[in-house]
Amino acid sequence: MSTRDVVGRYFETMRQRDWDAFAEVVADDVRYELPQTREVISGKAKYVAFNREYPGDWELTLTRLVVDGETAAGSMNFTVGDQELVGLVFLEVRDGLVSKVTDFWPEPYEPPAGREHLVDREPASVDRLSMP
Amino acid sequence: MSTRDVVGRYFETMRQRDWDAFAEVVADDVRYELPQTREVISGKAKYVAFNREYPGDWELTLTRLVVDGETAAGSMNFTVGDQELVGLVFLEVRDGLVSKVTDFWPEPYEPPAGREHLVDREPASVDRLSMP
Repeated sequence: MSTRDVVGRYFETMRQRDWDAFAEVVADDVRYELPQTREVISGKAKYVAFNREYPGDWELTLTRLVVDGETAAGSMNFTVGDQELVGLVFLEVRDGLVSKVTDFWPEPYEPPAGREHLVDREPASVDRLSMP
Repeated sequence: MSTRDVVGRYFETMRQRDWDAFAEVVADDVRYELPQTREVISGKAKYVAFNREYPGDWELTLTRLVVDGETAAGSMNFTVGDQELVGLVFLEVRDGLVSKVTDFWPEPYEPPAGREHLVDREPASVDRLSMP
């Protein structure tokens, strides 16, 4: 499978919570990094369990997918109840399997003062984050 | 110029704060979106001014660049004084110029409880964020 096929299947099986199929596109020694918390999950068994056990009745929509050689980047709208989050992910593929995942979950914040003369405030468009 | 050349030049001229050269790779009707604040900047003049006026003695290092057709994604380590941030950006290129930029600035947070059996905590590696 091409990198595009592998990462497409990664997101689609996650969206469907088909964890057996998800496990088939993940390398045995996959490394999952969350730089915001410095959490790392090592190995397929723990990484599939992490996803399977993730709490809440969430829904995921892939909003961007950028593929380049054996790397990819994507963005997701992630909804849990009435909360909307955006997830950003960088992936590495090796031998047709996802070998590294780096995830980011940015949160809404109030804009700093001093740039009001340059900016407009608009409703969310592609990327939907619930305001605090 | 290829998309890779255009976005490479975008990040390199930003890194060098060469705003005249930066302006040359940005479309007249560029749209810059910050979904976390719902701020939008429209047009080259305002967008270049926003970057030129951005406060602080910052330094930028591009850590990832993923290019796919006329789209790209990148990550940056951004240092201001003793604070370290990670910036994530999705770009669209049209007619050899950057026409849309979507920026995210995730912040560190404490991991939620309940997944300690699956995760390790490690020092920052590629992506460097100052802990609160």
